[in-house]
Amino acid sequence: MLNNISIIGAGNLASSLVPAIVQAGFQIEFIASKSSQSAIDLARKYNISVAKNLNEIKSKIIIIATNDSSIETVSDKLQNNQAQIVLHTAGSISIDVLIKKHSNAGILYPLQTFTKNKLVDLTNIPICIEASNEKTLKVIKEVAQLLSNTVTELSSEQRLALHCAAVFTNNFTNLMYTTGNDILKSHNIDFNLLHPLIIETAQKVISNAPEQNQTGPAIRDDSKTITAHKQLIGGQQLEMYELLTKWIKNRFRDMDKA
Amino acid sequence: MLNNISIIGAGNLASSLVPAIVQAGFQIEFIASKSSQSAIDLARKYNISVAKNLNEIKSKIIIIATNDSSIETVSDKLQNNQAQIVLHTAGSISIDVLIKKHSNAGILYPLQTFTKNKLVDLTNIPICIEASNEKTLKVIKEVAQLLSNTVTELSSEQRLALHCAAVFTNNFTNLMYTTGNDILKSHNIDFNLLHPLIIETAQKVISNAPEQNQTGPAIRDDSKTITAHKQLIGGQQLEMYELLTKWIKNRFRDMDKA
Repeated sequence: MLNNISIIGAGNLASSLVPAIVQAGFQIEFIASKSSQSAIDLARKYNISVAKNLNEIKSKIIIIATNDSSIETVSDKLQNNQAQIVLHTAGSISIDVLIKKHSNAGILYPLQTFTKNKLVDLTNIPICIEASNEKTLKVIKEVAQLLSNTVTELSSEQRLALHCAAVFTNNFTNLMYTTGNDILKSHNIDFNLLHPLIIETAQKVISNAPEQNQTGPAIRDDSKTITAHKQLIGGQQLEMYELLTKWIKNRFRDMDKA
Repeated sequence: MLNNISIIGAGNLASSLVPAIVQAGFQIEFIASKSSQSAIDLARKYNISVAKNLNEIKSKIIIIATNDSSIETVSDKLQNNQAQIVLHTAGSISIDVLIKKHSNAGILYPLQTFTKNKLVDLTNIPICIEASNEKTLKVIKEVAQLLSNTVTELSSEQRLALHCAAVFTNNFTNLMYTTGNDILKSHNIDFNLLHPLIIETAQKVISNAPEQNQTGPAIRDDSKTITAHKQLIGGQQLEMYELLTKWIKNRFRDMDKA
């Protein structure tokens, strides 16, 4: 087992990744970050050294957990070392940005939404992996399986598709929550009233495919209710309501007739 | 305590409402439904009589739990009786459709998504109430508080706003899940991978207001990732992606600058 890992980045993802790696029994040699204060804070918490310079880092596994836009720059700055494995953790960045410099390259992508102040337990988070060669894949798989119960091999294109699907199910879904809250606020209603519905909607999709769960005025083609809602809202909310209603009708047209 | 309730309707909502009312200690006198077989099935399960005719029903409380579009017709057909309270359970229908015939009218609206085969425990489901007069309100409140821990008084307009917000947080959210699944299917990826993200996205909104949780390429204005996603999808998915991205940018423009 490789016992020698360094992490570059000290943001949202790194804040959850570092404790998970430590808990899995690995020794983290260095943490490095553009923002040296974040690196110092994170390193101190787990008794890890801070690398002043990327050239210092000679660990067997280097995990680039920076912002997506910095991955290529960081990878290019790392020394080219045949004994090293260089990984990144991003959903939408191809493995190619690492391979051009490092022959042993790979991906360790935990599919979850990370915020700095709320540690995420990786055990039940899917980790998607990819590698530039079989030997590297074996090592990454070993590491990933110590972090998570769900390890899946995906190509860079599949990972991008998964990332795009995650934008729908997280980012766009959260816009739906936000818009719901905006409508309630303007009628002086507490958002708490929607909590059980939001949880039930999410939980239903764990047991049934989402296309089985579609309900509401759009799929019923209930023009009376649709009209009543539309008279209540305006501006972007109305534009959203109209298009989302149209999209539901289009998507479920065949099902609806069945 | 009034111990004499009848239910008109035997669909998704009634299937969860009837056992909740029985469990709360009420006697249900009659169940009636356009589809007599559904009424017979539901009535048999809880040892209740089936009303052949709406005119038979003389219970002190009559709950119309039919499709939204049938509420007014059913209400009109019920005998006008000063001692009776007539309620409906719909989010988007005004109390006025009942008041025109019944002086003691009201609403008992449980905010949840109901399906016939999955009973919903109403205890933790918000029930929104409204009444045509104070005396009726008192009775409805008593009943509602025996069914649920969260009873809220809302006007018909507020209830419509809540229903509209529920369309965003349930119907439109489920379209996001469905689209995510469609993207995964076309790349041969298991939807299970998204389950933890979907649950975390929902749970996050219980502790933080949704506008605090917005992440992703749209709010970051990460045009590289947006372009990569857009190259992966087409048709309605692409139209959705572009507009939802625009809407996030618009909605969070000021926050983003902050």
